[in-house]
Amino acid sequence: MTLRISTISITLGLALAAGAAVGDGHSQGPHASAIKNRQAVMSLYGFNMGILGAMAKGQADYDSAIASAAANNMVLLVDLDLSAMWPQGSEAGVHDGSRAKAELWANFPDVVAKMGELQAASAALSEAAGTDLDTMKAAMGPVGQACSACHKAYRAPKN
Amino acid sequence: MTLRISTISITLGLALAAGAAVGDGHSQGPHASAIKNRQAVMSLYGFNMGILGAMAKGQADYDSAIASAAANNMVLLVDLDLSAMWPQGSEAGVHDGSRAKAELWANFPDVVAKMGELQAASAALSEAAGTDLDTMKAAMGPVGQACSACHKAYRAPKN
Repeated sequence: MTLRISTISITLGLALAAGAAVGDGHSQGPHASAIKNRQAVMSLYGFNMGILGAMAKGQADYDSAIASAAANNMVLLVDLDLSAMWPQGSEAGVHDGSRAKAELWANFPDVVAKMGELQAASAALSEAAGTDLDTMKAAMGPVGQACSACHKAYRAPKN
Repeated sequence: MTLRISTISITLGLALAAGAAVGDGHSQGPHASAIKNRQAVMSLYGFNMGILGAMAKGQADYDSAIASAAANNMVLLVDLDLSAMWPQGSEAGVHDGSRAKAELWANFPDVVAKMGELQAASAALSEAAGTDLDTMKAAMGPVGQACSACHKAYRAPKN
């Protein structure tokens, strides 16, 4: 398995602050674009898992093709290289708009391991999602657990 | 080539409005989550192209590994199935927060063709980005042109 979060470079963070497209996010500061875009990735995780969640809860009919598409999207999203979105100095309390704890950078091998759990769970979900509702539901749990594991360890509470 | 924008389903749009994770985006209305998340995809296109753009403009040193990572991210992002993010009824003037023209839905085969251009250009960029600065720069043009082609045809001006 390829782990796509690799070295985090302060130099790159500065380059991005200078050069990257910065939208109209809430965050302000040198890493506003990085923070906005890692939050965009998280939002896309939630959006795709929300499609499956609506089916799991009976709020939407189970549709094999739609479920597969959402699960396949998760596989693509968790394979993104996020290095440039997590520059040093973009933690909560230091940078406006961030909820990332400083522990994330201090425990980086554990973050990579947790990302590996999400990748493995997403791959399994992608195999399962198109089969039937119950198979899909069973494969959703490990994805949610992988999300929660990282959030519990490394995400600060909302202000 | 697989074109990942397929049928747009009103039913799915309603299911998402009911079930998907809705963040704190600016848009409000039944398709707020879909609009927020398609804008997240666009932001991630811009973020990754911005990494290459900073190198192309000399604002950051050319780095083969970082350039490849950003270009590979583009390949993953343009392969996402965006169907659920473009529900009918989410166009500008009808839905708050949207800049998508109604023409997008009326000319859907053309949208799919334009997406195919972006996919082809991103694949070529991914091949080129790690070679050297000039090769990378030459491959960036077609990606920018594909972005612009769709924006010119289907994106309304900012309010």
